[in-house]
Amino acid sequence: MANQQPHPLAMTIGDPGGIGPELALKAWLAQTASATGTRKQGSNMLPFCLIGPSRIMAQYATQLGLPVPIVRVENAAMASSVFARALPVFEIADNDAPVIPGVAAAATAPMVINSIETAVQLTRQGITSAVVTNPIQKSALYQAGFPHPGHTEFLAELAGPGTTPVMMLANSKLRVVPLTIHIALSRVQSELTPDLIVTLCKITAAALTRDFGLLRPRLAIAGLNPHAGEDGTMGSEEQTIIAPAIARLKADGYDVTGPLPADTMFHEEARAAYDVALCPYHDQALIPVKTLDFHGGVNVTLGLPFIRTSPDHGTALNIAGQGVARVDSLLAALKMAGQMAYNRLSPEETPSHE
Amino acid sequence: MANQQPHPLAMTIGDPGGIGPELALKAWLAQTASATGTRKQGSNMLPFCLIGPSRIMAQYATQLGLPVPIVRVENAAMASSVFARALPVFEIADNDAPVIPGVAAAATAPMVINSIETAVQLTRQGITSAVVTNPIQKSALYQAGFPHPGHTEFLAELAGPGTTPVMMLANSKLRVVPLTIHIALSRVQSELTPDLIVTLCKITAAALTRDFGLLRPRLAIAGLNPHAGEDGTMGSEEQTIIAPAIARLKADGYDVTGPLPADTMFHEEARAAYDVALCPYHDQALIPVKTLDFHGGVNVTLGLPFIRTSPDHGTALNIAGQGVARVDSLLAALKMAGQMAYNRLSPEETPSHE
Repeated sequence: MANQQPHPLAMTIGDPGGIGPELALKAWLAQTASATGTRKQGSNMLPFCLIGPSRIMAQYATQLGLPVPIVRVENAAMASSVFARALPVFEIADNDAPVIPGVAAAATAPMVINSIETAVQLTRQGITSAVVTNPIQKSALYQAGFPHPGHTEFLAELAGPGTTPVMMLANSKLRVVPLTIHIALSRVQSELTPDLIVTLCKITAAALTRDFGLLRPRLAIAGLNPHAGEDGTMGSEEQTIIAPAIARLKADGYDVTGPLPADTMFHEEARAAYDVALCPYHDQALIPVKTLDFHGGVNVTLGLPFIRTSPDHGTALNIAGQGVARVDSLLAALKMAGQMAYNRLSPEETPSHE
Repeated sequence: MANQQPHPLAMTIGDPGGIGPELALKAWLAQTASATGTRKQGSNMLPFCLIGPSRIMAQYATQLGLPVPIVRVENAAMASSVFARALPVFEIADNDAPVIPGVAAAATAPMVINSIETAVQLTRQGITSAVVTNPIQKSALYQAGFPHPGHTEFLAELAGPGTTPVMMLANSKLRVVPLTIHIALSRVQSELTPDLIVTLCKITAAALTRDFGLLRPRLAIAGLNPHAGEDGTMGSEEQTIIAPAIARLKADGYDVTGPLPADTMFHEEARAAYDVALCPYHDQALIPVKTLDFHGGVNVTLGLPFIRTSPDHGTALNIAGQGVARVDSLLAALKMAGQMAYNRLSPEETPSHE
């Protein structure tokens, strides 16, 4: 069991007018270069299969002069045997709409959505072991009638009812989960409830155990106010919302600390005391993780019935097709998805929760 | 003029039950060690004079076994000639109240306050060139009738009416100014006004020119909401409060950018584009600066008629008298005060503002 290799990863193409196709080509070059001679024993970099039209990948390889042979595979699982010599592409329905680098077009939206749906389907069927998504341009999808607020909500919809997706940002130095995300700061106080905190902490802990091999993950929860309210002198949400949630989590056996002053919990010594930091609002979570490592961050969606990682950047239409996009974050997303797939395949221990 | 050396720095003793006296002894050891042989040409580490009772410094030197000769000076300016061989101490009124490491006592509060007043007086008289403060314990001062909310407000009071002190946190990687400080997060929206932003930006810019040698400092202002509100879809304060302030500053000739998304403005490449980041609230400013360098941070008070720096930590009563306190931040505060004093003495250029 421990020597078994997980199935390949399914990579979506993302918006073809953005940097996704270019990054996929560069990721293949980076992974296959590292596979020759210098590849480390036990590396978790799994082969991946690009889910999308091969004609678009060929267009970018030609335009950018990237020496990437492309091979169409009938079965995504075959990607493993192809990967060392060519980028495996699993073809999907395509209307041959023109692709112009830097332009997110509504005409390609059905293909973009199909790529995501197919990657999820293949992964849920066990043909691929995880979904790694390239960035999409929501405005183009909306024009084509896409009814979901974003990528993550669409994936949760595909996962089925009762799914609560949890966004985690992670790099080599820090993992963070924002407890509220894309809302005005003035709405944070009303959105943050003990129930929300408890739910997101439990999903996070379960995922860290199952997918990250942490038997009893250590959760650290940030306070909302400066100095975590300093005993109520600068805000009371620590006492009325966060502390009660922590008490419930502790009663359920979780290893959780807080509310911690947010400004003193992200330096190196402080980070050593926990496995993940959960923060009441967006900037509290994203400032430290992006300050510590801007290019190597990975967006992981916890709480789905399948593994999903993504690079922590957008379509970057302004630099698409120029060959200058950095592949660091997509490579980190591939690496993390691979590690998570290995952990699901060979759990070292029995999970402590749920 | 350029070869002239500024007068010595005035260092307050801080709460004698805290780590201040220990740090003062360690700072003298560190500075004099670096002065022998390895001292770099052009180092800005000025000698300092401790303002406080010599008996307390002798008590800590003995208790901690630190080999620091102590010499009382009648005139703080004489500290320069003494410093290489002994720690110069400028004696102040003292009631001989017992000093117990780890205990902040109301009995020593008058001496603590006197140390601050004397350091300010000596600096305003030109006998010393800057005030470097050790941490005080507000609770002990309150018991003795201290009427000010904190250290900085007391210094502003000593500076006279019309003084607006501005807190800047700085280390080798980043300078930040929080536009609001120790208030509940829910109050930030109402405290943040265009007038406040304009006033604090102008004080900051003037100080960066006069004391940090930046002819035309580049100010970057963070947005309040995630992604700086993303065109008003997640909060409108960027449009109603921050953008109007920026427009006024630009009209007055300041180099200012923003409102910037806070999560993407603190990594290395982003930091290269500005000299100081001004942030709507406490954690937005303090998370990145403390994450990047927790031990070397300096608290600088801009807007005073004299130079004031301070280590970025408290009295640490829990470790006082144990010899384990880290002197990094106090040394950084001394170094920064010295650099600021050099800049006031030998301005390279005419300031561009005011």
